[in-house]
Amino acid sequence: MSTKKDPYSQLYQLSKTYATYESIASLVNWDTRTYMPNQAIAFRAEQIALLSDFIHKTKTSKKFKKNLSSLIDLESGKIIDLQLTQQQQACLIEWRRSFLQEAKLPRSFIKNLTRTTTIASQAWATAKKQSTFNDFSPHLEKIIKLMKQKASLLGFKDHPYDALLDLYEPGMTVSKLQPLFENLKNNLIPQIKKNTKNLAFSFLKQDFCPEKQMEFNKMITLAMGLVPENSRLDFSAHPFCTSISPCDVRMTTRITPKNLLSNIFAVIHEGGHALYYQGLPVDTFGSPLSETISTGIDESQSRFWEIFIGKSKPFWNYFFPKLQTIFPQLHNTSLEAFFSAINQISPSLIRIEADIVTYNLHVILRFEMEKEMLEGTLQVKDIPTVWNQKMENYLGVSPENDAQGCLQDIHWSAGLIGYFPTYALGNCYAAQIFATFEKENPQWERELEQGNLFFIKEWLKKNIHQWGKFYTPSKLLEKISNKTLDESFFIDYVNKKYSDLN
Amino acid sequence: MSTKKDPYSQLYQLSKTYATYESIASLVNWDTRTYMPNQAIAFRAEQIALLSDFIHKTKTSKKFKKNLSSLIDLESGKIIDLQLTQQQQACLIEWRRSFLQEAKLPRSFIKNLTRTTTIASQAWATAKKQSTFNDFSPHLEKIIKLMKQKASLLGFKDHPYDALLDLYEPGMTVSKLQPLFENLKNNLIPQIKKNTKNLAFSFLKQDFCPEKQMEFNKMITLAMGLVPENSRLDFSAHPFCTSISPCDVRMTTRITPKNLLSNIFAVIHEGGHALYYQGLPVDTFGSPLSETISTGIDESQSRFWEIFIGKSKPFWNYFFPKLQTIFPQLHNTSLEAFFSAINQISPSLIRIEADIVTYNLHVILRFEMEKEMLEGTLQVKDIPTVWNQKMENYLGVSPENDAQGCLQDIHWSAGLIGYFPTYALGNCYAAQIFATFEKENPQWERELEQGNLFFIKEWLKKNIHQWGKFYTPSKLLEKISNKTLDESFFIDYVNKKYSDLN
Repeated sequence: MSTKKDPYSQLYQLSKTYATYESIASLVNWDTRTYMPNQAIAFRAEQIALLSDFIHKTKTSKKFKKNLSSLIDLESGKIIDLQLTQQQQACLIEWRRSFLQEAKLPRSFIKNLTRTTTIASQAWATAKKQSTFNDFSPHLEKIIKLMKQKASLLGFKDHPYDALLDLYEPGMTVSKLQPLFENLKNNLIPQIKKNTKNLAFSFLKQDFCPEKQMEFNKMITLAMGLVPENSRLDFSAHPFCTSISPCDVRMTTRITPKNLLSNIFAVIHEGGHALYYQGLPVDTFGSPLSETISTGIDESQSRFWEIFIGKSKPFWNYFFPKLQTIFPQLHNTSLEAFFSAINQISPSLIRIEADIVTYNLHVILRFEMEKEMLEGTLQVKDIPTVWNQKMENYLGVSPENDAQGCLQDIHWSAGLIGYFPTYALGNCYAAQIFATFEKENPQWERELEQGNLFFIKEWLKKNIHQWGKFYTPSKLLEKISNKTLDESFFIDYVNKKYSDLN
Repeated sequence: MSTKKDPYSQLYQLSKTYATYESIASLVNWDTRTYMPNQAIAFRAEQIALLSDFIHKTKTSKKFKKNLSSLIDLESGKIIDLQLTQQQQACLIEWRRSFLQEAKLPRSFIKNLTRTTTIASQAWATAKKQSTFNDFSPHLEKIIKLMKQKASLLGFKDHPYDALLDLYEPGMTVSKLQPLFENLKNNLIPQIKKNTKNLAFSFLKQDFCPEKQMEFNKMITLAMGLVPENSRLDFSAHPFCTSISPCDVRMTTRITPKNLLSNIFAVIHEGGHALYYQGLPVDTFGSPLSETISTGIDESQSRFWEIFIGKSKPFWNYFFPKLQTIFPQLHNTSLEAFFSAINQISPSLIRIEADIVTYNLHVILRFEMEKEMLEGTLQVKDIPTVWNQKMENYLGVSPENDAQGCLQDIHWSAGLIGYFPTYALGNCYAAQIFATFEKENPQWERELEQGNLFFIKEWLKKNIHQWGKFYTPSKLLEKISNKTLDESFFIDYVNKKYSDLN
C-alpha cells in the first residue's frame, strides 16, 4: 500500500539503490585484490561486468531521467523546483552532471571498454614481468582509440583530454592544469637538483619483522582515529583504501621485512583516505552529499596525513620512541637521522616509491604523454623513448628497462587516462588546506608531540568531509582558504622544509 | 548486431545472470561471517536485501516465464520441445520446479520475511548470550507464523512441513522421513546406552598452538585435493563452506588452543563440501547442471569425508604420525588412544559438538518439534520444556539453561525451518554411498594408509559431483547403490564400528 512518492524522494531512492550496488562492487573489488584465489579471476570479471552494467542501467534509466528532468532543466541546469533545500539542490546539480555523463556512453561502448581493459590488464601484467613493451602496445593502442572515442562521446570545448579529466576532477581542464604543472616543474626541478641526497641510511636496511610492523600500524591508525569496529587493514600488492559503507572502510598495505618506511607511509596515506570516507555524512548515504568531492580532494586527504602530518618533526617526536620500543634495532638511531631519511629527496625510477618532491614530476611526465596521445602527437610505439627522455630531463635518471619505465603503472591498461593529474593536484590541495589548518591550529605541533591527533580528523571533517559533494572542489577550496587553487602553497612548503632541513 | 536467441539460450542466459548474482551474494555473506567490521551489519543487511530482491525478480520475470513455458508445460511439467538433449531437458525440469516455487512467494512476503529474520537473528544472539528464551520467543512466534504462511503459499499435499522440506531436499516428505527417523531412534538409542564412554582423554586437553593447527589443516586439505589457487581456509564463529565460483571455494574453521579435534574435523567436513563444489561441471555454470543436487546430498559429501574417511583407522595410520611431528606433546599418545578419543560416543548438549551417533538424535529432536510447531500442536512458549524432556529421553542429558538448550542454533531465527533433517539425511546418504565406494575400491584402506586420498575425490566426482542436478536425489542414490534411501546402511555401519572398537 505504498503511496506515490514525490520526484525528489524517487530520485534519492534510485540513487541509494545504485550507491548500494556500487558498495557491493567495492567489496567485490576489495576481495579481488586481497583474498581471492588466483584462478577465480575470469569468473570475477563476469561478476564485475554484470554489476557495472546494472549500475549504468540504473543511472541512465528512464525513471531516473523523468524524475530528474521534472526538478532540474537537463539542458540549462536551471533548478525548476525552488522549494527544495540548498542540500537538495546540490544533489540535483550533481545528479544532472553525472546523468549527462553516463547517458552519453552507450552500454555497448562500456562493454567493449570493460572487455578491452580486462584483457589489457592481464597483458600488461605479463608484459611488465617480462619487460616487453611491444607485447603491451597493441592493447594500449586499442585503449587510446577507445579513450579518444570516450572523449568525443562525452564532449569537450577545448581539448579532448578535458572530457577525461572532468571524470575525476570536475571542472579541471588542460588550460588550467598546464600552467600549474609548468610552475611546479620550474620550481621543483631546481629544488631537486639542489637538495638531492642519495644517502644510504643503513639503519633502514635491517630486518623489520612483519608482525611487529603490523603492531606499529595499529598504533598509528588508532591514534589517527580508526577503530576495528568500523575499519580494516589487510595486505595487497599495491596499497589502497576503499569504502564499503559508512561503517566499513578498508585499507591495505604491503609489508616486506626490509622496507619499513614503505609500509608506514602507506598506512598513514590510506588512513587519510579512510578518515575522509568515515567523515562523510551517514544519514544522507546514497546521495551526492555523502560522496567524496573529487579524486584530487580525496588524494589531498591522504597526502595531508602522509606529508604534512606523517613527515613532520613533531609527529616523530612522539612516535619515534614508540617505534624504537617495537624495534630495538633502532635504539642507536637518532631521531634526526630517521627524520632525514624519511624526508630525503632522491630521484628514482618508480613513482609510488618517490619522495614528496620528485613524485610530482613523475605525475607531470604522465600527464604530458597522455595529453599528446589523445592529441595524436605521440604514437604508442614512441612511448618508451619519450618516457626515458623525460625521466632524464626532469629527474636525471634513466630506466634500464620498460618494467622500470613506461610499464610500471597499471593505470593505462585499466583505461585510467586523465587520472594521474589528480595525484599532483592532491599535493597542491593538501598544501593549501594545510596552510589554513596551521593558522587555525597554532598549537598543532605541541599536540602532535603528545601523540594527540584526533583534532586533525575533527578539523578535516568540519572543513571537508562533512560537506560531501555540496560544493564543487574549487568552491570548497575557496571556502577553506579564501583563494582559488594555487600551487605556490606546495612550492613554498617544500622550499621552507628543505631550507630548514639543510 | 545480436541475432535473436532461441528460447533455451535465453533461459540459460537469465539463469546465468541470477547465478552470477547469487555468487556475488555468496561472497557478501562470506565476508559478513569472516572479515566485516562489526558496525557494518545494518548496512550489510541493506546490501543483502537488495541482492535477494533482484535475484527473486529475475527468477520470476516475465521473460523467464515466457521462454520457459514455450519449452515445458508449466502446469503438467511435460517437455514441449523434444529436440532438446537429456541435459537440457533436466535443466527445464529444474527451472520449472524452482520457478513455480519462487513465483508462489510474493516480493512483499520475501521482504517481510527478510526483515523479520534479520531482526530475529540479532535478538537470538542477545537472548542466547543471556540465556533468556522469553526475549526470543515473540520473534520466533512471528517466524512460525510466516513459515505457516510460506507453506500455504508454496502448497502441499499431506503436511505443511512437506512444503518447507522440499526447499532443501526436493521430493522429501514427512511421511517418508518419519519412519526413517523412528528406525534411527530405535536403533541408535540402545547403541548409545550400550557404548557411551565419557572418558576424559587428558592428552586432548593440552595447548595446541593455532598456527600449528593451521599447518596441519593445510596438510589435510592439500591431501584431499584442495589447492590455494582455487580455494581458501579462513576463520569464523561457526565453520562453513561456500562456493563463490567454480574456481573459488571458501572454507572456514575455528581454532582454539584447547580444542584440536573440533578444528580438524571441521576442516575435513568443510573440505568435503568444497570438493563437491569444485567437482561440479564448469562449462555449464549458471545452469542446474552445475548446481548441488540437494542440501542432504551436499551434507553427505561433508559427512562422507568427516566420518567415513576422517574417523577411519587407515586415515590416522598415515596422519597421526604427521600430527605428532607437528605437536610433539602427542608423542606419548598411542594411535589407539587417539582413535578411541575421536570415535567416543558421549551424549552431550550441543549438536555441533556431538559424536557421529548422538548427532542424529539432536537432529530428530529438532525435526519433531518443528513439525509440531507447524501443525500448531507445540506452542513457542512450551519449547524449553519439550526440548529438555526430549534431550533427557533420547540422550539422558539435560541442559542447565536455554543457551545450552533450545537457543543453541541460529537456524530458527534465520527462518530455516525444514532444514535440520538434511543433516541426518546427509549421514544416511553418506553411509549408503560409502557402501558402494568400499565395494568398488577394495584397496581403499591401503591407499589411505599411504596418505593417498585423491582417488576418493575422483570417485565422488564421477559418481556424484559431475552430475549436478541432472538426477533427482533419489534417482542419483539408486544409480549409485541400486537401492532407494535406506537408513540401515548407517545403522549397520555404526553397529559394526562400535563392535570392532570394543
